[in-house]
Amino acid sequence: MNDALADSLPTEEPAPTTRCRILATAERFFREIGYQKTTVSDIAKALRMSPANVYRFFDSKKAINEAVVERITRDIEILIAGIAEAPGLSASDRVGEIVRALHHDCVERCRQNPRMHEIVEAAMTESWEACQHHVARISAVLVRVVGEGVRSGEFGVADPEVAALCVQAAILRYCHPGLVSQYPNMPGPPIEAMIAFLLRALRAPEA
Amino acid sequence: MNDALADSLPTEEPAPTTRCRILATAERFFREIGYQKTTVSDIAKALRMSPANVYRFFDSKKAINEAVVERITRDIEILIAGIAEAPGLSASDRVGEIVRALHHDCVERCRQNPRMHEIVEAAMTESWEACQHHVARISAVLVRVVGEGVRSGEFGVADPEVAALCVQAAILRYCHPGLVSQYPNMPGPPIEAMIAFLLRALRAPEA
Repeated sequence: MNDALADSLPTEEPAPTTRCRILATAERFFREIGYQKTTVSDIAKALRMSPANVYRFFDSKKAINEAVVERITRDIEILIAGIAEAPGLSASDRVGEIVRALHHDCVERCRQNPRMHEIVEAAMTESWEACQHHVARISAVLVRVVGEGVRSGEFGVADPEVAALCVQAAILRYCHPGLVSQYPNMPGPPIEAMIAFLLRALRAPEA
Repeated sequence: MNDALADSLPTEEPAPTTRCRILATAERFFREIGYQKTTVSDIAKALRMSPANVYRFFDSKKAINEAVVERITRDIEILIAGIAEAPGLSASDRVGEIVRALHHDCVERCRQNPRMHEIVEAAMTESWEACQHHVARISAVLVRVVGEGVRSGEFGVADPEVAALCVQAAILRYCHPGLVSQYPNMPGPPIEAMIAFLLRALRAPEA
């Protein structure tokens, strides 16, 4: 059921509020008992509503998880878009700050929710397209920042798009909630060493 | 039970052969029905021996998986050590060839065994130390090659060890069997673009 349809149906309170309450409750259940064990009935019961009422807003648990993941990803996307536009920063500063923001956001969310990898795994299995859109929106910000660095002469890469995708792929170990949540002790250099290394690749003049 | 003890017990055939047969059968079961569903009894039955006999060689399913993973990882470790020592290659050639070998080996194994991520996940959960040793042995080869590149003046990084660890962390998306097996369509630039990008970072002179 889409939002427009849900909004047109009579509800005890405005639709956005009910939607938000369902999402907040779902997030709490996913965090406390895990995505797999949570049922739509659990969520409905906790909100003192019928499962049918939850289904008026989300047609499946998958749809609820997509909305939860969308809420999480939108926050970080807004944050890095802000870094890309902040005045007075060099392109190197922007790349460094974006990678730091992606990493710290990921670590913080995984710390707050030790079952994060379950949510992410469910999203990657059931809602692969939504995950790819999130990855693509981060790519777009990085491509823009790297492109500006090339135009200003700060970066020496021949193809800013490929270089930006290389940066994004290289930081997977630090920014992928599935990896960070499940294997917090995965070996690897500190994030600052990785940022410095990637900036060397961006800045070097084309051979 | 350790190997020395197993070897000292009377067996119908030389111990190494039985060990190898157990491992080959376990590998086949892990590939065909998955690690989780395989039991030590299944393996024993297929070999027409008692579970007790299997336990004389491996004291748990975990120990069998460790040996399976060790066999797989030893092959690739020998391959990349050979690249590190092959005559007539520049340090850049060696880094490129090692990354290609790690990637192709990983992709090929995951293609042959679509349940590879189960084996890897079990190893990472139950035998974290064995996994870390494998990662450390690959690090050692990369550190050596990057160090040689610095000494010959081909690479410009200040700390070869940190740079080698950055290369290793940056290629996770291409060489981690858990990721490659479970998410073969994960977005990212082609491996050759990533190799070229990482070589830019290695070659750039220290600022």
